[in-house]
Amino acid sequence: MRHPVVVEFASTAYARIKPVAVTAVELRGDFWGRRFDINRKETLPTQWDHLESTNRLNNFRRVFGEYDGPYEGLFFNDSDLYKWLEAASWLIARGPDAELEKRIDEGITLIERAQEEDGYIDTYFTVDRPNEKWTNLRDLHEMYVGGHLIQAAVAHHRATGNGRLLNVATRFADMLCKRFGPESDGKVEAVDGHEEIEMALIELARETGHSRYLELARFFIKARGHGLLKGGRFGDAYFQDDVPFDRMESLAGHAVRALYMCSGVTDLYLETGEEGLLPRLETLWDRLTASRMYITGGVGSRYDGESIGVDYELPNAQAYTETCAAIASMMWCHRMLAATGDARYVDLFEWTLYNGMLPGWSLDGREYYYVNPLENDGTHRRRPWYYCSCCPPNVARTIASLPGYVYGTDAESLYVHLYFDSDARIEVAGKTVGITQRTQYPWEGTVDFTIDTDGDLALKLRIPGWANGQAALSSREARDGTVKAAGVSLSVNGGSVDATPDSNGYVTIHRTWKTGDTVRLQLPMDVRVWQSHPKVPDNRGRIAFSRGPVLYCVEQADMQGVDLDELFVDPAQISAHWEPSLLDGVVALKGTAQRRAIDSAWTGELYRPFGQQREPAAGEASPLQLVAIPYFAWHNRESGPMKVWMNYREA
Amino acid sequence: MRHPVVVEFASTAYARIKPVAVTAVELRGDFWGRRFDINRKETLPTQWDHLESTNRLNNFRRVFGEYDGPYEGLFFNDSDLYKWLEAASWLIARGPDAELEKRIDEGITLIERAQEEDGYIDTYFTVDRPNEKWTNLRDLHEMYVGGHLIQAAVAHHRATGNGRLLNVATRFADMLCKRFGPESDGKVEAVDGHEEIEMALIELARETGHSRYLELARFFIKARGHGLLKGGRFGDAYFQDDVPFDRMESLAGHAVRALYMCSGVTDLYLETGEEGLLPRLETLWDRLTASRMYITGGVGSRYDGESIGVDYELPNAQAYTETCAAIASMMWCHRMLAATGDARYVDLFEWTLYNGMLPGWSLDGREYYYVNPLENDGTHRRRPWYYCSCCPPNVARTIASLPGYVYGTDAESLYVHLYFDSDARIEVAGKTVGITQRTQYPWEGTVDFTIDTDGDLALKLRIPGWANGQAALSSREARDGTVKAAGVSLSVNGGSVDATPDSNGYVTIHRTWKTGDTVRLQLPMDVRVWQSHPKVPDNRGRIAFSRGPVLYCVEQADMQGVDLDELFVDPAQISAHWEPSLLDGVVALKGTAQRRAIDSAWTGELYRPFGQQREPAAGEASPLQLVAIPYFAWHNRESGPMKVWMNYREA
Repeated sequence: MRHPVVVEFASTAYARIKPVAVTAVELRGDFWGRRFDINRKETLPTQWDHLESTNRLNNFRRVFGEYDGPYEGLFFNDSDLYKWLEAASWLIARGPDAELEKRIDEGITLIERAQEEDGYIDTYFTVDRPNEKWTNLRDLHEMYVGGHLIQAAVAHHRATGNGRLLNVATRFADMLCKRFGPESDGKVEAVDGHEEIEMALIELARETGHSRYLELARFFIKARGHGLLKGGRFGDAYFQDDVPFDRMESLAGHAVRALYMCSGVTDLYLETGEEGLLPRLETLWDRLTASRMYITGGVGSRYDGESIGVDYELPNAQAYTETCAAIASMMWCHRMLAATGDARYVDLFEWTLYNGMLPGWSLDGREYYYVNPLENDGTHRRRPWYYCSCCPPNVARTIASLPGYVYGTDAESLYVHLYFDSDARIEVAGKTVGITQRTQYPWEGTVDFTIDTDGDLALKLRIPGWANGQAALSSREARDGTVKAAGVSLSVNGGSVDATPDSNGYVTIHRTWKTGDTVRLQLPMDVRVWQSHPKVPDNRGRIAFSRGPVLYCVEQADMQGVDLDELFVDPAQISAHWEPSLLDGVVALKGTAQRRAIDSAWTGELYRPFGQQREPAAGEASPLQLVAIPYFAWHNRESGPMKVWMNYREA
Repeated sequence: MRHPVVVEFASTAYARIKPVAVTAVELRGDFWGRRFDINRKETLPTQWDHLESTNRLNNFRRVFGEYDGPYEGLFFNDSDLYKWLEAASWLIARGPDAELEKRIDEGITLIERAQEEDGYIDTYFTVDRPNEKWTNLRDLHEMYVGGHLIQAAVAHHRATGNGRLLNVATRFADMLCKRFGPESDGKVEAVDGHEEIEMALIELARETGHSRYLELARFFIKARGHGLLKGGRFGDAYFQDDVPFDRMESLAGHAVRALYMCSGVTDLYLETGEEGLLPRLETLWDRLTASRMYITGGVGSRYDGESIGVDYELPNAQAYTETCAAIASMMWCHRMLAATGDARYVDLFEWTLYNGMLPGWSLDGREYYYVNPLENDGTHRRRPWYYCSCCPPNVARTIASLPGYVYGTDAESLYVHLYFDSDARIEVAGKTVGITQRTQYPWEGTVDFTIDTDGDLALKLRIPGWANGQAALSSREARDGTVKAAGVSLSVNGGSVDATPDSNGYVTIHRTWKTGDTVRLQLPMDVRVWQSHPKVPDNRGRIAFSRGPVLYCVEQADMQGVDLDELFVDPAQISAHWEPSLLDGVVALKGTAQRRAIDSAWTGELYRPFGQQREPAAGEASPLQLVAIPYFAWHNRESGPMKVWMNYREA
């Protein structure tokens, strides 16, 4: 039976929560239902056109002589086709789509024909650089590209049962197994400069049942951190090759690499239960969320090396926060949830989905951000494609697989991780449970469930951290002991029940259900006002707003004629308003603010004697209305400055 | 007659102030006299050893078969020897030094033997890549390296009258002249990816009298900005190749490149008086100083591309502010002073000398910073040498040539640009003027001059911008009309005279001097407290201190047990104290401050609900003594955090 789950944890004793197939859930409604359709109708077709027009597909064709131009683009461009195929696979898992299947078939055929006899596949090398294969693992990404091939193949096999692409992937992986491993086995001790192969191999082991892939992934994870890569200009830390994982104190270096590494290590833990891995993962997660993560959930404070900064280094305008890093963080969260059963990882998954990844994707589904600043002068625009275009197909595969993240199961329970307007039929404890969610979430906090099953079942509903009066991002330590449910209410068939979550953040309704039973969850949708740790220099004297899981920003389009540097908002006077015609329909925040003019005489100098400029007296400040929009929707109108963190002035 | 000036403006009508030979001035005293000696006794010898031990010299020897190892290091490593030779040349200009002359001779011999028949010289190419010469001007720096060869050769010729190295340089330059230029002349239209050759060629034209070098420099300047380099991953702006100079609105891209470009363009103006160049240079200088320059005088806000940021992008901890960029800015200032006669350019030269370049050089003369942050956690340490070691020999040549920057002349005047304890004999209007300065500057503001000449002479003394109640860095517009001399006093032979400077920032004493006449200048050495333009996010709520031309910082070594993020200084209570045993003798600032503790419960989270944390009440703040040290002297003791911009709290 096909069971197309995003990541397959079902076979291991170390996964506390099992995944649900992407096909088990149908997204509906104006928020996710619409976006899911946009991904299928706009994102995937236009991306295919880019793959074609930028010669990414021709790079394959030239391997077998059907294209005679030069290799074009970056050396890891093959991976864009692989991610696209993964996205498309999750979609055709849902049912026939002739157009999409035709393209998938075309893509797989290209790949099959471009694979060499011994299993090697990388179009950058095969034609022009056959003698340079495996000569520069640090920089040239052969295993990173191969990892995406494997992930696509696993997705395609899970989605269709068809083994064509999986066959390509196993031939490639078998070649890796022959070549790389312990020197004592006569193999080459090496690691790839960009993590990705680790989690891919573990998924391949799950899909095929062959433990050699898991063993190789384990080898790569253990071999890293010993300077094998000889770091070069960015240094070993860029590649997470400066310290072995079991002694790593904090995540640093290239953000996507670091987070893909953590995803792979979590997969290794889930398969082996190896002692020490999980506490180390938790430590790294704590440090990351407590000192190196943007309030968007984004990771990566530096353009230099696309890297994570030191503690509290979180500049807004120069934030890097690559869309792929947000996705990588979500991938890691999904695995940590399985390993721990703790909803804090869903909190971050959800927060990053809305505020870290979604900003990278335009409302029309055709343009993307690679870099996601929290403040901008209006010059940073989404683009339809990039020379280094890792992010767009990463968005596509994430949205296409999103139904697989909504629910989870264990031996006796159905977990509701995410509140999405949706219909689902899920296998729990050997029987199929029908469950629908009707909700305007993330705009409204009411979620109405209908249970379409009879019998005993523990329904576990996640109480989001933000609903708990907690920070969206917080370490385990900061969260422990503060779990409560202020403002949360819960009823079953109209009768109120206790909404207090357990220490994992879920409230359990364990009962014998009858078809048609209803559950209503009400989450408080107050506007939350955030301040930042005083050690973050850029955020001093500033606040940010959220409501539900959605972070807000102020954008020039709503604040005509005001320099946003001169805007001081009043944190006490913010209210939420549904605006159906704004940005395809959003809840906007409105409030009071003041324009407090920067001394207009302060021009021509950066530095002045202290005390020469006074802050404007109250009489000089002019009141105005504040309108804030969801951060994910910024820059879908005319160009203009934007800020997440706003100056405040207490009224 | 030898006339070893740093840059030769004497032959052009467009230089308002002429230079003085480096040999005309003898630096004395504990500040510059001592540093000048350290440069000779510590810096140059240890740098020579690094040139040898890192195979930079062997890269030359292998060209003619006296070394058989591989080429080692970066492709532009030849330039480190050239800069070292320039430094050494300025020193031997002062008199015999057998050890230094032996090394200079050895260096020149290496270079002579490594030059090819046709004048080409670049050891990265000659042996291993003969077919790749001139194939990648964007990235491989052949003309940048050649420019440093030319500068060294000009310095050596000026210093010694010996033409050996100049002969190498002219052969190289003649080859450039044959190869590069307008297509209509049958030449290759190209520019180098790293500016430097432009000012070098103009100096070569001055030294040899051959206008073809000036013409080629002019060609390179005009050819830039039209995308000839095809920018690549950093984009055209990195190379200043996105906009032609005559339409450039602001400096951007790689900081050293941009400032070397401006130096070359100023040289072009000085030689040709070409219309439009000077106003454009002034516009760029205004924009740079008014919105893109650190209070240290440093330039370069981004590690990414070692580049200048957008307006007001001036992060402290992540400041790049390469030592070479400070030096490049000083080189540009020196040329702008010649072009305009305006002391504002000396103001910035001096400020950058003390606060932009000097921090890059350890007190013992043996270690260097490449990057100069304004705030650090204690991990950023000077190093004896770098893989990319452009900065250390750049410091060496600047210090060695420093005597040449102290004075200037015009037809009837002697300009005193810089206040350095020194003895000098200077040619003005056909006669030799002896002049001594006795001063403890920069620690004290009193400068006593003795004039050792008879006859008519206008003595022009610069009144520093900082003494004028002006910002150290300011645009021409911000400065115009505000020139005054509050706190400055001036006397001749004990009798007070008017100290009001002219609109160029100089006060003139025009009289018939008698040998033994004395002049006393007294500059106000109050502690200045600076605030930053409110659009600089990192500096809000912070102040910085200076005294005279010296910027201060607070360093953990003086503030044991206090988290510098918790330090709030009182701007009204700062006083200056000479500390002879601190950091080889400095004036330290002392004052009152408070420790205002960051909520010790604020751990484990970056973001908290607004209003949950209160600022500490007055009773919670603990008073302590502030000790601030000159920023240039930081990190010459144990490792520890440092800040230039400190939190303040009005008393």
